Amino acid sequence: MDLLKARILKDGQAINEHVLKVDSFLNHQVDPVLINAVGQEFARYFADSLQGEKIDKVVTIESSGIAPAMFTAAALGVPLLILKKQASRILNSDVYQAQVHSFTKDLDYQLTVAKKYLQAGQKVLMIDDFLANGQAALGVLDICKQADVKLLGIGIVIEKSFQEGRALLEAEAMNVYSLARISKLSAETITFAD
Amino acid sequence: MDLLKARILKDGQAINEHVLKVDSFLNHQVDPVLINAVGQEFARYFADSLQGEKIDKVVTIESSGIAPAMFTAAALGVPLLILKKQASRILNSDVYQAQVHSFTKDLDYQLTVAKKYLQAGQKVLMIDDFLANGQAALGVLDICKQADVKLLGIGIVIEKSFQEGRALLEAEAMNVYSLARISKLSAETITFAD
Repeated sequence: MDLLKARILKDGQAINEHVLKVDSFLNHQVDPVLINAVGQEFARYFADSLQGEKIDKVVTIESSGIAPAMFTAAALGVPLLILKKQASRILNSDVYQAQVHSFTKDLDYQLTVAKKYLQAGQKVLMIDDFLANGQAALGVLDICKQADVKLLGIGIVIEKSFQEGRALLEAEAMNVYSLARISKLSAETITFAD
Repeated sequence: MDLLKARILKDGQAINEHVLKVDSFLNHQVDPVLINAVGQEFARYFADSLQGEKIDKVVTIESSGIAPAMFTAAALGVPLLILKKQASRILNSDVYQAQVHSFTKDLDYQLTVAKKYLQAGQKVLMIDDFLANGQAALGVLDICKQADVKLLGIGIVIEKSFQEGRALLEAEAMNVYSLARISKLSAETITFAD
């Protein structure tokens, strides 16, 4: 997505070889025009790619995924389901949980969702801001399997293609669509994969 | 806002005299049609109420405020700034912080924002999902004062009018606009203030 790549080059800050800050338009401050366009593009791509297969809802993880996922859900006309990050396991049978390790923060959390919002047989699309090690997406896939829900595809705003996330998701036969794929980061330059 | 009140009566669940669950359309699952309408209504009201005074950005607190605030920012055509909840103080001079007590979770957090996104003289609007004890909004006001930014108004999706938040904000001469004001909750009924 050219608009997004241009904005990353203009306003993104490569802190080091692993960390890209996009605070000014994606995850601390959000540009509604750009992120609405991101949502429109996800809706367009998955409508095409899934050949009109019905999407029941969009899922994301709090909190940086919410803005792009909200616009995607609006463009598709379906509900958005926000998976929560809990510090610990919840001991009741009303929720699905999956343990996720965050390499960024070096801690584990329990991805958590109320069972009643994922009904067996439903089909969902996941939207998130970043794909790096793929652990969050694998957690969502785990929860979808627990719920007998089909994860039709994963839309990512920025993929760090030099990390293992995409390979792990493709090994699970996932349809992954990233709007900007970064092959290399350094303090001086941001290089795209395509 | 009649559409919202009707939805609260249809899908809201009063757990007890203090807790209203609106998980199915506002803060766990989000209905994009309803919440887009919420954003449009905030934009309309504050454009009128502020008589066209320029709003530089919309601010909210992660994560339940993001969806309504995102649609409000989109309707106004201004950036959204998402204030973060940090567990502890950050020891550098790049951020503003304010300590907030959450009565719901019975813990304190540090509302945190990068200084560069709040420039002295700017004018902002705060949007949040709930107003109860008003502590989060007072934290935002504290940060605005630190930054020499003017908080023009506060838009709330659901106000629990039987708690002290509104009185505390009006004591600070705040322009508070709540789309649904609940005067009484019980396991059987939800009563609106107007």
